Amino acid sequence: MGITLGHHQYGKDEVRVVRIMRADEPHEIHDYNVGISLVGDFDAAHVDGDNRNVLPTDTSKNTTFAYARRDADVTTPEAYGLALARHMVADVDPVERARVTLDAYPWTRLAPDGTPHPYAFVRTGGMVRTACVTVDAADTWVVSGLKDMTVLKTTDSEFEDFLVDDLTSLQPARDRILATTVTAQWLHDDIDLDGDVDWDTSFDTVRTAMLDAFAGTYSHSLQQSVYAMGEAVLDAAPTVAEIRFSCPNSHHFLYDLGEVGLDNPNEVFHADDRPYGLIEATIRRDDAPDPGAAAYDPGLAW
Amino acid sequence: MGITLGHHQYGKDEVRVVRIMRADEPHEIHDYNVGISLVGDFDAAHVDGDNRNVLPTDTSKNTTFAYARRDADVTTPEAYGLALARHMVADVDPVERARVTLDAYPWTRLAPDGTPHPYAFVRTGGMVRTACVTVDAADTWVVSGLKDMTVLKTTDSEFEDFLVDDLTSLQPARDRILATTVTAQWLHDDIDLDGDVDWDTSFDTVRTAMLDAFAGTYSHSLQQSVYAMGEAVLDAAPTVAEIRFSCPNSHHFLYDLGEVGLDNPNEVFHADDRPYGLIEATIRRDDAPDPGAAAYDPGLAW
Amino acid sequence: MGITLGHHQYGKDEVRVVRIMRADEPHEIHDYNVGISLVGDFDAAHVDGDNRNVLPTDTSKNTTFAYARRDADVTTPEAYGLALARHMVADVDPVERARVTLDAYPWTRLAPDGTPHPYAFVRTGGMVRTACVTVDAADTWVVSGLKDMTVLKTTDSEFEDFLVDDLTSLQPARDRILATTVTAQWLHDDIDLDGDVDWDTSFDTVRTAMLDAFAGTYSHSLQQSVYAMGEAVLDAAPTVAEIRFSCPNSHHFLYDLGEVGLDNPNEVFHADDRPYGLIEATIRRDDAPDPGAAAYDPGLAW
Amino acid sequence: MGITLGHHQYGKDEVRVVRIMRADEPHEIHDYNVGISLVGDFDAAHVDGDNRNVLPTDTSKNTTFAYARRDADVTTPEAYGLALARHMVADVDPVERARVTLDAYPWTRLAPDGTPHPYAFVRTGGMVRTACVTVDAADTWVVSGLKDMTVLKTTDSEFEDFLVDDLTSLQPARDRILATTVTAQWLHDDIDLDGDVDWDTSFDTVRTAMLDAFAGTYSHSLQQSVYAMGEAVLDAAPTVAEIRFSCPNSHHFLYDLGEVGLDNPNEVFHADDRPYGLIEATIRRDDAPDPGAAAYDPGLAW
Repeated sequence: MGITLGHHQYGKDEVRVVRIMRADEPHEIHDYNVGISLVGDFDAAHVDGDNRNVLPTDTSKNTTFAYARRDADVTTPEAYGLALARHMVADVDPVERARVTLDAYPWTRLAPDGTPHPYAFVRTGGMVRTACVTVDAADTWVVSGLKDMTVLKTTDSEFEDFLVDDLTSLQPARDRILATTVTAQWLHDDIDLDGDVDWDTSFDTVRTAMLDAFAGTYSHSLQQSVYAMGEAVLDAAPTVAEIRFSCPNSHHFLYDLGEVGLDNPNEVFHADDRPYGLIEATIRRDDAPDPGAAAYDPGLAW
Repeated sequence: MGITLGHHQYGKDEVRVVRIMRADEPHEIHDYNVGISLVGDFDAAHVDGDNRNVLPTDTSKNTTFAYARRDADVTTPEAYGLALARHMVADVDPVERARVTLDAYPWTRLAPDGTPHPYAFVRTGGMVRTACVTVDAADTWVVSGLKDMTVLKTTDSEFEDFLVDDLTSLQPARDRILATTVTAQWLHDDIDLDGDVDWDTSFDTVRTAMLDAFAGTYSHSLQQSVYAMGEAVLDAAPTVAEIRFSCPNSHHFLYDLGEVGLDNPNEVFHADDRPYGLIEATIRRDDAPDPGAAAYDPGLAW
Repeated sequence: MGITLGHHQYGKDEVRVVRIMRADEPHEIHDYNVGISLVGDFDAAHVDGDNRNVLPTDTSKNTTFAYARRDADVTTPEAYGLALARHMVADVDPVERARVTLDAYPWTRLAPDGTPHPYAFVRTGGMVRTACVTVDAADTWVVSGLKDMTVLKTTDSEFEDFLVDDLTSLQPARDRILATTVTAQWLHDDIDLDGDVDWDTSFDTVRTAMLDAFAGTYSHSLQQSVYAMGEAVLDAAPTVAEIRFSCPNSHHFLYDLGEVGLDNPNEVFHADDRPYGLIEATIRRDDAPDPGAAAYDPGLAW
Repeated sequence: MGITLGHHQYGKDEVRVVRIMRADEPHEIHDYNVGISLVGDFDAAHVDGDNRNVLPTDTSKNTTFAYARRDADVTTPEAYGLALARHMVADVDPVERARVTLDAYPWTRLAPDGTPHPYAFVRTGGMVRTACVTVDAADTWVVSGLKDMTVLKTTDSEFEDFLVDDLTSLQPARDRILATTVTAQWLHDDIDLDGDVDWDTSFDTVRTAMLDAFAGTYSHSLQQSVYAMGEAVLDAAPTVAEIRFSCPNSHHFLYDLGEVGLDNPNEVFHADDRPYGLIEATIRRDDAPDPGAAAYDPGLAW
């Protein structure tokens, strides 16, 4: 029997870059967690211990910081990721494909007495913006995203008329809390990547569409709400070819107070951690090309 | 040699209560993680396995939910904690002291097209509000707090003229990033706990004073910034007797780009996780009585 | 423009099942975290809010517990996962594919005075055993695995003669610490899934081969060590078609004590959390069929 | 109103030191997470921004590594902590009290084919060993400990005849799973700290006594099991003055299979994360002096 090396990739993960724009007041801050993953001709390193084709992961770290200083537009994760991924494929000979993943942590400028402060900030919380940029010799995929955004509706959510088998004990719910923590990633196409793309406006459009659809949908299931969010995003953002969601159904169970002599008219809930439902779906434009697994980080590459 | 039982306490921790106010639109949401800890005559349980004095921790859970339904004002963690702690001491015979700790997770109402939605929310992030209420036969201590609030200044922070020994290699920093994630707890006195205390306004006053002082202080050290925040809180909030801070110095190291031929004029930083400095201090009114360890949860009970 | 539903799946995640075998002494314990994900005809739920094909995720939870009671061999994660996945595809009409992922937490029997105790245990730590079983109408994939296993060598590891570009500052290392936390998953074939497979022995064979290869390989890179581990597994375990690794390079940096007047002959290291290198590779038998993404959970489905 | 600085302390936390003993084969590894906290005359730093008394926390980091190289016995967390704490008080003028906390991560030597390997290890898991050493001008407190040790009994545990109030709905349990994750810290006295203390043997004695007592106690409550563990430790380890436990009651709920037509004779359980009971107690020798809060890190300083 012979043994062979299959798919392999390597890189540096969780490079924590903070870039301050301080040439003029007010200062700006851009705060990233960056990962770089390289695919290419690295067989000899694995099989023979021959590192001649292996650019150290330490160099990926240096590159991430150096590009933040010099070469890259770091004002959006998409632009920063594009600069890094293109460099790796263009300038590092053995690299055939590079994928750059970025978490961008938002900050809010402090404003004592209502006056925006030139250099003091508080971290915003409530959401992390993400990007995943993949480049090979032929193609470039830009996937924008967000995660850790928790939304909740206190009513206009039900779950009824579902399939029942002999292991089903769930009772239909006519009025329940619906809550989830959204992870979403959306793939752009029909976009001029060499032009002056306004990634911030694009992101805000998508996020707003998502939140509005969540709020506005009378929900028969989290599946339906997820689909509605995806549909709203595609309607609002013409450069989005498809969007993928991974959404836990964060159960809020009505606490049974009957045993202690109280009623509970949908007022007091126990927020349970696990188990949770997990709803995952892609919503696509009809005419969007299938990206396969190429565009996405493994987490949403089904 | 004899063996004896020393201090002991027990209770239920991490009870995740979500209370929906839905009698009228718009709905309101109050979201808590509650812990209850009881001190009293529980020796026999430990020494003899005699549970006759032991109220089950399951009852603490029931009580937490039942009070959210019926007896408690749950609109602030302070009021909710007071109701629970007082009940435990007043109504459960063996309980001599009760401490209730609460995390309160803030939510923001969604507003599609600018119109506040009657029942859809997104979790705010950026901070968790806390309370720790302790009640015994003689006293009541109400400690308000916050945690997980990360602040950062891009300039007006230095660290110089420090003590140097033969293991010191740190160079003075004339212009550095100052960043920390604030955990703060403040003890109230001179407050009529049976009256109609406006805990929300009190909290906002403290948080605003803290942020303004952080922004407004030219900092020679995180110690100085912490003290300035404490002073500002005491100035702004007359019911606060003392405030305790636990603040990691979240290091942002200027990345050395010289090895790759670039300068770095305070623009590109590596945000390091650990180790970190840890600055902890109490700032008090001169005339405040010493609360000892009574008022605080162990985390800040030095 | 039309909008359509792409790939979608749903299920229950993090079902924490503990199964006690207590018919005879000594008792046995099997401790699992189970996830179930279903693919099938669920379009109407998303698009129309029609739940008639949707088996509640609550039923997946019930099923997981019920099969632990009655129908499944729960002594190994592979057998338990097979029973659950097969049931979902065979018995639930709209389900076309089911994937069951399991973490199995090992326990060690306590042995006071050297005598094995009939019903007292301590959790082993040091590793979690995993399985991922996927079933559709045509095929069954059984992937065994482990995670959270941290290994380290204090010498016989170097990293030299690597590719250098103008952003490289890393110096060659002739003698360094090599450390990683192994996540590995391996796909079985040529195995009679209806027969009496000894999954425990198979797992032990793989884990031992992996550890022996890590210890025995003079390492020019983590890539080489990973490949050596994979090769050893394929040599030792004939039912394994391929194995996938995801291995962070957990950097241990020699601490520079020169600034405080001390040498450091490879004795005192700083274990840094992040960034880290990330080495990922598949090692395969030449004649193994390509499983595509079908067999693996997204985390290792490149 | 005047404002004043109360208790304050500062230092460096989470210094990750790995010390390799490599002068001879087989190599040894000692792996620590170290925190240092200093109390002393640091008022001017807080109030006036005057850092002249402030030894940088960076120096605490340097010191931790330098002592691992040169001055300290790092083979046990107690000896390492003593060296660091004594140095800070003796050699750094403004320091009046130093507290050093250490987590020690155990490693197991690999043994391919049964032969112990000279320099390859796997991290043991299942427990972290801890120490907390406090030194001031007058006293030295050495507290040893462990955490993250999860134990479980499948029977010989009940909870009955407890106190019932009108919010109690819990039913008595005659046969239940008892499980907890032990955090314990024990204070030594009557020990010659300048002599050659065998901390490893002391630790093993305590841990064994604890596990044996957990296994051997027919439990009417977790309180009783905790007390029995403490009593066993004091019986076995004469240098221990007192021991403090913080033990969550990790609930394993019998899963109700009646709704799906199955019985469940104490075989299938749901391991719930939260809420959990939390049992905390000190067990002391009659003649032990009260350490107050001095000896313990805040987490167990009630």
